[in-house]
Amino acid sequence: MNLPSSALEKVVEELSRFPGIGKKSALRMTLFLLRSDEQVVRSMTDAILAMKERTSFCSRCGNITEEELCRICTSVNRRQDTICVVRDFQDVIAIENTSRYNGLYHVLGGLISPMQGIGPSDIRIEQLLKRVETEPISELIMALSANMEGETTEFYISRKLDSSKVQISSIARGISVGGELEYADEITLGRSIVNRVPYKISGGDGS
Amino acid sequence: MNLPSSALEKVVEELSRFPGIGKKSALRMTLFLLRSDEQVVRSMTDAILAMKERTSFCSRCGNITEEELCRICTSVNRRQDTICVVRDFQDVIAIENTSRYNGLYHVLGGLISPMQGIGPSDIRIEQLLKRVETEPISELIMALSANMEGETTEFYISRKLDSSKVQISSIARGISVGGELEYADEITLGRSIVNRVPYKISGGDGS
Repeated sequence: MNLPSSALEKVVEELSRFPGIGKKSALRMTLFLLRSDEQVVRSMTDAILAMKERTSFCSRCGNITEEELCRICTSVNRRQDTICVVRDFQDVIAIENTSRYNGLYHVLGGLISPMQGIGPSDIRIEQLLKRVETEPISELIMALSANMEGETTEFYISRKLDSSKVQISSIARGISVGGELEYADEITLGRSIVNRVPYKISGGDGS
Repeated sequence: MNLPSSALEKVVEELSRFPGIGKKSALRMTLFLLRSDEQVVRSMTDAILAMKERTSFCSRCGNITEEELCRICTSVNRRQDTICVVRDFQDVIAIENTSRYNGLYHVLGGLISPMQGIGPSDIRIEQLLKRVETEPISELIMALSANMEGETTEFYISRKLDSSKVQISSIARGISVGGELEYADEITLGRSIVNRVPYKISGGDGS
């Protein structure tokens, strides 16, 4: 691409780092910045730098926060006896957006992966076990990826909690709501038959 | 959308200003920034601010530049007798990327639009007329939008240059290369018939 200035080229290059943003989209974004008022651009860069400076991880659950503890951990309206175990803070945002879960979270920050050299001590499993011990937890909901790493992590945690009275459950896998049976893969369809649920007149909340 | 921090919300809001970027893409970009090293983020914001600070408009053609004159105006390899008249610096980038034009440019910075209150004196027409007078220009190639505003601007400029010996041409309108006749609109198809070109064995350059 022939650009009229190296400063412009540099911005296109930087913006192409974003996932899903190619050179053409990055150029469109760069030209938008070039056309915008200094003030608009400054407000954007300031917001980004402020976010990097002000956010950190909740010392209890590992979620993103601007304080010592996150909004979910400090909320008085959330059930204190359930922890949903997720890999990443993005998963917390995804589950929160469903508005169907009202308990606490624990962000592992990764999954056990011997292939990538990630062991149990590299992710926040020890902290989870300690929470189960010290907090009044009755259920752990495992919401991890349905792959080798997710299942290994789930298995490891459940073995570690063998002697504890906490109940461990996994999120349901199956055909997505509105999904067509004929397009589902065999493993998902198979699991959805094995894990079938009794018919209820109105959709239950599960909570 | 439920986000764990207001600093994060602010960044999502700021990034949604980009054309074609919705809330979901902005969130994906924000989470990428959140995960990235401080250094990576700082390099991005620095590049954006440097671009805003260092770029300005070429005093001759109105293109983006970091100097007094742009790279195209100062190039010794470009024909000095042809000016391609465009609306915006984006059009310069688009034409440069074709590698089929080797003359100079003149960026108007807008089109005459009585409806929007934009008159000839609001865009860089006076500067163009002066260039035709003082530089050894033999041809003006009008590469403006094929709409009311583009045609009004083209007409105004050509009237102003009635007494000059400079040749004025417009870029060809027609069916796009590889385009199907049946899907073209009537006006484009009609123009492509009226402005048909004699058959040549090998594609000419037009330059």
